[in-house]
Amino acid sequence: MDVESITDAADPRLDDFRDLTDADVRPDRRGIVIAEGVNVVERMVGSPYRMRAVVGVASRLDALRPALAQRDAPAYAVDKWLLSEVVGFRVTRGVLASADRPPALDAAELVAAARRIAVLEGLNDFENLGSLFRNAAAFGVDAVLLDPTCADPLYRRSVRVSMGHVLRIPFAVLPGAWPGALDLLRGHGVTTLALTPRGERPLRELAAPDRWAVLLGAEGPGLAAATLAAADERVRIPMVAGVDSLNVATAAAVAFAQLC
Amino acid sequence: MDVESITDAADPRLDDFRDLTDADVRPDRRGIVIAEGVNVVERMVGSPYRMRAVVGVASRLDALRPALAQRDAPAYAVDKWLLSEVVGFRVTRGVLASADRPPALDAAELVAAARRIAVLEGLNDFENLGSLFRNAAAFGVDAVLLDPTCADPLYRRSVRVSMGHVLRIPFAVLPGAWPGALDLLRGHGVTTLALTPRGERPLRELAAPDRWAVLLGAEGPGLAAATLAAADERVRIPMVAGVDSLNVATAAAVAFAQLC
Repeated sequence: MDVESITDAADPRLDDFRDLTDADVRPDRRGIVIAEGVNVVERMVGSPYRMRAVVGVASRLDALRPALAQRDAPAYAVDKWLLSEVVGFRVTRGVLASADRPPALDAAELVAAARRIAVLEGLNDFENLGSLFRNAAAFGVDAVLLDPTCADPLYRRSVRVSMGHVLRIPFAVLPGAWPGALDLLRGHGVTTLALTPRGERPLRELAAPDRWAVLLGAEGPGLAAATLAAADERVRIPMVAGVDSLNVATAAAVAFAQLC
Repeated sequence: MDVESITDAADPRLDDFRDLTDADVRPDRRGIVIAEGVNVVERMVGSPYRMRAVVGVASRLDALRPALAQRDAPAYAVDKWLLSEVVGFRVTRGVLASADRPPALDAAELVAAARRIAVLEGLNDFENLGSLFRNAAAFGVDAVLLDPTCADPLYRRSVRVSMGHVLRIPFAVLPGAWPGALDLLRGHGVTTLALTPRGERPLRELAAPDRWAVLLGAEGPGLAAATLAAADERVRIPMVAGVDSLNVATAAAVAFAQLC
């Protein structure tokens, strides 16, 4: 790994990392995925994403030396003040990397190859989305499917909260009308389990099907009535009455732990 | 409920809510607990805490009218600009309430009365602490015990993330040397289960003891070696190799779900 020093914030080699607070919604940046922090950059190195560049303070680049030796992306050393100036906020993790956004995966191919699936409806909170991918990775979920209204899992905050696992668990948007698109799962012999506080059966009483998909809705509204009706089973995590439902990523972790 | 309008940011009746960003660490404020948002204020109303005052925009005070009718705390209506000016940041939840911090509870009394306990070691992230109380409430945990190095669960951000459940689940700091203080649990016939990725037994294979305490360490370092050694059992949540451990509050939720 060759490290080049940069001392001018206007250096065009830093353009991937400029003004990141709103970078992901700028049309010219939609193709770039950002990783923040040593752990997440390491996970980007281990992902199939094509890396573009790494920028960070010397100590963090040193920590990443063994990982970055596997890639030929250029590495730029900067001081922390310059890094914060370029990025547009105070960078506490000391290193960032950029990668090209890969082409979207085909949902049917993912379903055909997966045994354990998470299906997300209406999840538009980037942190919940990131946490969910982290929990899916912990329990060996093979693929994540999104309805057309979910937020983009490759948004910077989601990547960070996922600890980079969003770069490693394959995901796809389910095509076609919702929730009719769930027929794709049934067609592949995958049992769909809608997780809802009003589920008729406690999840722990269910013998895990050979191939399953847990359907999860956004905190607050939960799954839509049509989605609940379209699922093979409606299951619940038994909870104390009068307590708000769990955070969606936490509920997912409990479900994955019981099914995996 | 009588609502008084306030139009002057310097009005001393708003002092409980002034400059909240660092309020919880100012010595003159240690005695005050702050709730933010309609849901959390409602939970404060339902808690044993003595409420001092409520301040908010008219629509949020209206939403709270039935709850606040149960208390005689004064309610102050302000506009959102004044509220943000007093508090020191942009208030998105539109309403805050203050209560007196109650006297510390006695750990031995809590242990004597509880069947399901969470014991926290070194948890100093306010959001993890809050999430953990929320999850403890969802699964009916009776009490939370803290080692002397944990952060204060009554800090504003922790109260908010807990959805107010930190005001309802009794907690206490375990007195004396750590982890020797765990003897208090054993003395009451409570089985201590240390949750650790290196636990010799998967949690789901354990028949839940009649009275149990799950010991949880901070994300990253995990439980100290002496704490692991002091526990009756070391249990693990089976996870995919090479994935970082779960967030501590998420791990706690998985454990509570399997034990409750």
